[in-house]
Amino acid sequence: MLSNISIISLQTIQEYIKALDLLSIIEEGFVSYSTGKAVIPPVAELLFENPRGETHIKYGYIKEQSSFVIKIASGFYENPNLGIPSSQGLMLLFHQKTGQLLAILLDEGYLTDIRTAIASMITLKYLAPKDADCIGILGTGTQAQLQLKYLTQVHTCKNIIIWGRNKEKCFAYQKQFQNSPFQIKIAKSISELAEESKIIITTTPAEQPLLKEEYIQKGTHITAVGSDTPYKNELSPFILKKADIVVSDSIAQSNTRGEIFQARKQNLLDERKIIELGNLITNPEMGRNNKEQISVADLTGVAVQDISIATSLFHYHKQIIELK
Amino acid sequence: MLSNISIISLQTIQEYIKALDLLSIIEEGFVSYSTGKAVIPPVAELLFENPRGETHIKYGYIKEQSSFVIKIASGFYENPNLGIPSSQGLMLLFHQKTGQLLAILLDEGYLTDIRTAIASMITLKYLAPKDADCIGILGTGTQAQLQLKYLTQVHTCKNIIIWGRNKEKCFAYQKQFQNSPFQIKIAKSISELAEESKIIITTTPAEQPLLKEEYIQKGTHITAVGSDTPYKNELSPFILKKADIVVSDSIAQSNTRGEIFQARKQNLLDERKIIELGNLITNPEMGRNNKEQISVADLTGVAVQDISIATSLFHYHKQIIELK
Repeated sequence: MLSNISIISLQTIQEYIKALDLLSIIEEGFVSYSTGKAVIPPVAELLFENPRGETHIKYGYIKEQSSFVIKIASGFYENPNLGIPSSQGLMLLFHQKTGQLLAILLDEGYLTDIRTAIASMITLKYLAPKDADCIGILGTGTQAQLQLKYLTQVHTCKNIIIWGRNKEKCFAYQKQFQNSPFQIKIAKSISELAEESKIIITTTPAEQPLLKEEYIQKGTHITAVGSDTPYKNELSPFILKKADIVVSDSIAQSNTRGEIFQARKQNLLDERKIIELGNLITNPEMGRNNKEQISVADLTGVAVQDISIATSLFHYHKQIIELK
Repeated sequence: MLSNISIISLQTIQEYIKALDLLSIIEEGFVSYSTGKAVIPPVAELLFENPRGETHIKYGYIKEQSSFVIKIASGFYENPNLGIPSSQGLMLLFHQKTGQLLAILLDEGYLTDIRTAIASMITLKYLAPKDADCIGILGTGTQAQLQLKYLTQVHTCKNIIIWGRNKEKCFAYQKQFQNSPFQIKIAKSISELAEESKIIITTTPAEQPLLKEEYIQKGTHITAVGSDTPYKNELSPFILKKADIVVSDSIAQSNTRGEIFQARKQNLLDERKIIELGNLITNPEMGRNNKEQISVADLTGVAVQDISIATSLFHYHKQIIELK
């Protein structure tokens, strides 16, 4: 059977990914999800205490497709001290009619990072003010870096202001993009960042809100990428209370994790105000309709993103193999 | 990274497994589980309608070990019509301190089948009447066959009576063991089987009870292997009501699936009567203490079995590699 299973290395995945129109692929996934075409059970989770780590298993299928996907993605936060990336994991594709294993994508968490950044880009495409002349990014890690990899696909702004707890990491971030089209400025404080930016992307694993309601200007759009557990929390819940538009990648998941969960737990957010991302994509008029509005998109990460990226990658792999 | 991951084929797994003392390995796993040394979140599940199929993800770790395990096992019941086994799946081992993938065991459901049969043997070791001169087996599939592979390790009885809905499969079963130490008789009815057997093992995916309370003689031990979902049900709940001893492989899982779940749903079983298998192994005196007692063991299949078998197999693999 081994010969029938495609085992695809990280290096090959990184090569393939360049050929894929990720924005369309993930958008389509969100639409399938919000229109009930996807079967996505609750996230399975494994927590580790010493050292602190977490493993998420996200899985499911789109009914009209021929495969199902199980994605395993871990974050072990002490790994960098050992010279190992904190993201780990792999994706598995199975035949939807027989359960047979079709492919193992040894992505080491890379595809999760990519599909997360792409989801953020989709929220900017539909919600970010087009005339914003500065984009603020909280955090300096993998997600903070990946935002800039895809940003030009959805926005013209090249002025970036970043904030990170660790100043060395801020300088490293700045250095990383010194030959890029982007101008990177380091914010002295989160309030300074919020003052300068009409688009803010938060990418930290914070468990206490970093972005306060009083920092947020009228007309700002915020995409919260970091929180994917019941404990992580980057935005003050009062921001969600104040927001005119609140978008969730998965309303079901927002019941148990993420920024929306935090705000609803404190009764600060009426669930009728929440729009699901797949519905916003189909009906963009549900988004902003004036320059004063504040919008928030909360991304907890949905298996349908994993299903979409893994399936597209596997189809591309089969095409390449057939051409050889 | 690919070079650091052990990818072990089914054929190699089948070779390795012969060298392992599976009974001790799985017993130790159950003891770790019942003494709180294992972290085992609820089973994750994916259901398919057309054709009917199910995928279980069982996962977790034993705190004192160095790895964690995610097991994917599927049953697609139409597969045999396509010449494909209904069991499918694989097991994954990861480093418990970094989340890095260590090994992929491409077992196609084989290790799940084996660890299930071994759990059944463990229940017989601790609960089956030693003087039983006939063992009844309901079902003729993989589990019904695997019971005889390991039976001599825990019992001396060689007379087997089987029952199956499909008579051809009964004959095929009989033929399969014609050169074995076992005498296989085909029962005309389930009641005949129960009349002749002081040990009964049920291995079917029945969703309506097959074994009725009125069939069961005093002194009988029953191990129910088949039911691992909230829907499957092989034993009349009145058998559990009548039983003197009821053993569960996982009391937590018995709250949501298996025979104990069915009986408790109907208020026919006091949960205080239930003993967890790992505790029975540590305290065998909790088992039968006279020849009249009826005992029932309900196996829903616990991730700790997968963790134990996968971890032992991986350690054996590393030894073999080092010797080469």
